[in-house]
Amino acid sequence: MTTPYLGEFLGVATLIFFGNGVVANSLLKLSKAEGAGWFNIITGWMVGVGMGVYVAIACGAPQADINPAVTFAKLLNGVYTTPEALMIMISQVAGGFVGGCMTYLFFRGHWELTEDQGIKLAIFCTGPAIRNYGQNLLCEIMATVALIFIIFAMFSKPVGGMAPGFGPFMVAVLVWGLGSSIGGTTGYAMNPARDLGPRLAHAFCPIPGKGSSDWAYAWVPVVGPFIGGGIAFALAKGIGIL
Amino acid sequence: MTTPYLGEFLGVATLIFFGNGVVANSLLKLSKAEGAGWFNIITGWMVGVGMGVYVAIACGAPQADINPAVTFAKLLNGVYTTPEALMIMISQVAGGFVGGCMTYLFFRGHWELTEDQGIKLAIFCTGPAIRNYGQNLLCEIMATVALIFIIFAMFSKPVGGMAPGFGPFMVAVLVWGLGSSIGGTTGYAMNPARDLGPRLAHAFCPIPGKGSSDWAYAWVPVVGPFIGGGIAFALAKGIGIL
Amino acid sequence: MTTPYLGEFLGVATLIFFGNGVVANSLLKLSKAEGAGWFNIITGWMVGVGMGVYVAIACGAPQADINPAVTFAKLLNGVYTTPEALMIMISQVAGGFVGGCMTYLFFRGHWELTEDQGIKLAIFCTGPAIRNYGQNLLCEIMATVALIFIIFAMFSKPVGGMAPGFGPFMVAVLVWGLGSSIGGTTGYAMNPARDLGPRLAHAFCPIPGKGSSDWAYAWVPVVGPFIGGGIAFALAKGIGIL
Amino acid sequence: MTTPYLGEFLGVATLIFFGNGVVANSLLKLSKAEGAGWFNIITGWMVGVGMGVYVAIACGAPQADINPAVTFAKLLNGVYTTPEALMIMISQVAGGFVGGCMTYLFFRGHWELTEDQGIKLAIFCTGPAIRNYGQNLLCEIMATVALIFIIFAMFSKPVGGMAPGFGPFMVAVLVWGLGSSIGGTTGYAMNPARDLGPRLAHAFCPIPGKGSSDWAYAWVPVVGPFIGGGIAFALAKGIGIL
Repeated sequence: MTTPYLGEFLGVATLIFFGNGVVANSLLKLSKAEGAGWFNIITGWMVGVGMGVYVAIACGAPQADINPAVTFAKLLNGVYTTPEALMIMISQVAGGFVGGCMTYLFFRGHWELTEDQGIKLAIFCTGPAIRNYGQNLLCEIMATVALIFIIFAMFSKPVGGMAPGFGPFMVAVLVWGLGSSIGGTTGYAMNPARDLGPRLAHAFCPIPGKGSSDWAYAWVPVVGPFIGGGIAFALAKGIGIL
Repeated sequence: MTTPYLGEFLGVATLIFFGNGVVANSLLKLSKAEGAGWFNIITGWMVGVGMGVYVAIACGAPQADINPAVTFAKLLNGVYTTPEALMIMISQVAGGFVGGCMTYLFFRGHWELTEDQGIKLAIFCTGPAIRNYGQNLLCEIMATVALIFIIFAMFSKPVGGMAPGFGPFMVAVLVWGLGSSIGGTTGYAMNPARDLGPRLAHAFCPIPGKGSSDWAYAWVPVVGPFIGGGIAFALAKGIGIL
Repeated sequence: MTTPYLGEFLGVATLIFFGNGVVANSLLKLSKAEGAGWFNIITGWMVGVGMGVYVAIACGAPQADINPAVTFAKLLNGVYTTPEALMIMISQVAGGFVGGCMTYLFFRGHWELTEDQGIKLAIFCTGPAIRNYGQNLLCEIMATVALIFIIFAMFSKPVGGMAPGFGPFMVAVLVWGLGSSIGGTTGYAMNPARDLGPRLAHAFCPIPGKGSSDWAYAWVPVVGPFIGGGIAFALAKGIGIL
Repeated sequence: MTTPYLGEFLGVATLIFFGNGVVANSLLKLSKAEGAGWFNIITGWMVGVGMGVYVAIACGAPQADINPAVTFAKLLNGVYTTPEALMIMISQVAGGFVGGCMTYLFFRGHWELTEDQGIKLAIFCTGPAIRNYGQNLLCEIMATVALIFIIFAMFSKPVGGMAPGFGPFMVAVLVWGLGSSIGGTTGYAMNPARDLGPRLAHAFCPIPGKGSSDWAYAWVPVVGPFIGGGIAFALAKGIGIL
């Protein structure tokens, strides 16, 4: 039953269950981890990325992009045909939606105790610390360039490969660092499926006392990462590491 | 003297000495780590899992389940006979009991300084943030499915193996992430021996000023993980990664 | 297009984007990570070092020094000619400058909300907790000796090599530990390009409400690391691990 | 110039520079890391252990015990002759003394700003949270049994070895977990050289405003770890993992 589409679907679902979960776990009222703070949040996302990659590979997606912006960069590099890339991206967004719904389900009982609608939205998708679409877009572009260019570097020939099973861990460590370093402006989406999938889940799930899904902002963490993926590909190709 | 039963016994004792220890260390009055918080707690459990796996392997249990729910999933997969699985599970619960007793012993002097009976119980076993048996059971099922399915994925053939000694570390990282992300509702037992063993220790040890061992809840972190183990097995088998 | 100079340039730019970024992320007003604290800061620097090494190797610098003090120690060891070493050092400082400018760009909008000029400077370059040039110099020398001597030890023959891809991670872990242990006196520059490059960026970028770039102190984190590199080389050579 | 004695000496000096350093860094007034807390402290010790092992191996001590209790357990196992073991232990204590002196030197200027004499002592050596020599001794014995037994397990034949360079990291992770879980009662010395060496440094160095070196307690973190080392050896031998 394993296919690249199933692998990418389950990989992103895993990523989002950890990633949405860690924000819920750290912010929802009465959670034992309430107030655990930023470092806990970036660690949940870190592990989610690593585990998402293992799940994706195991379930049929040896490329284990779990991110449409990565898929896009590889499409530009000739790894996929356009229809393959599109199907993969749809699978990724669907995985993000399911991961968001799982988070909703897991934390039932805590939603009604938490009044702040902004917190409830922030569990599912990203938002700007300071709303300024131009600057927000720039942040998502820069963060995604860093993410994808460094992944290309890490697995480039001169590095000499990764010990078996170690690659997904180092990608996770990279995301740990990105969160710690540049996550504070727009929430480091860097991944259209990471934002759009669970934003749809926020709109869809009967979350008690939820507010708007902020669709006005939703294009930023979709468009930004795609542009970033394109730039990362061009940079890596131009320099000669691809 | 090494056998799978001894290995599983000592592996779980190790896990629980770290795991109960880290909660005691972080919460008991006058501990130098008092107030170290959630991130310290999930790190103690993380390392306990990794070290428990090494100890189990070293002492005769190459499967190193250290969790009856994992053993159950492998029983379904034909790795064990039913009597073997039962003996392993009993060894695991016994290990959890001994690990809990060791924690009691280690922190003598701090128990009488800590008034809160809920804290004393929380050091040994899990409890719900919001008591709702149906939802609590769902949380334990979902967390265990995530734990065991991802372990199956991580060690599946397409991932290509783990560098020597690296596998136990990645399982530890997985548990780190689960704690950070979804530990806040029921305390992420995900393991019947992790909860039942030290709950028995709480009931048995002469802890000054202790309260009830909350047996009314005790079935949740036993039944939930077993169901989760079954679902994880069915999922992994159905998808074809086992 | 890959050359040692490009590799060192991009490696240090990566290091500084993470490193300056994590201080900005943790200290600037309205950042989602505001108040994330010291542990978050040392983790951003840790990951920046690891990723900087991968990027440097990928882009043509197999030595991946990303630090003029390391380059200097290797020059003494005969790895480079003097002109090569000089060109590499210039590339490294240029990389630090660009990394600092990228951080300025990334956090636009947050600068004007943050009044404290000391924080704005601390994002880019180091400064002493207690200003005492002699003692500050000693700290930078000692920290750099530790950094470079341990790197020499880690990759020395008796250790038996590192699993593929694991070396950069362990260097990152080393810097994590140095930050946690001895970062509090002078900010553990240990690297002339890490301090001088982004200090130039601080002077150059139109940061709203910025103060002095504290050039009076700027020689300490340049001279100290070079002396430290020399001592580390002499020690390692004298003991016989080089 | 490399010998097992030099290796053990420099390995422990490295361990203590990180370990004493991280407590100083986290507690001394005006340190940039002041208040970084327990998790920062256990991370400094973690990295110190890993780096101490690399340094010891590189400088001529392939066994890299960096702990007289480990040396004692190996003496019982026939790895050393008694004179060799004694010389190694003396080298280790001397390394601890030098590491403590280096910490004193590094943080000059901060000592006089910090009034609390207990903090100044705690930077160098361990002390009990609740003074009760019997229970304190038990804690040091139990912690050391856990440390050394798990190290024996980790490197036992059935585990199948460690990827190159990975072993020191896993020992570091073990010490991270021990700190998080059971460090709060007596400060997890688990190593006579870790306590006695820097306690001598505390007595010797002209630390402004220092108090007593608490020699009344000094035997506990020496005797306890030796007993623990003996028990760990007996356990490992009895079970058959040595």
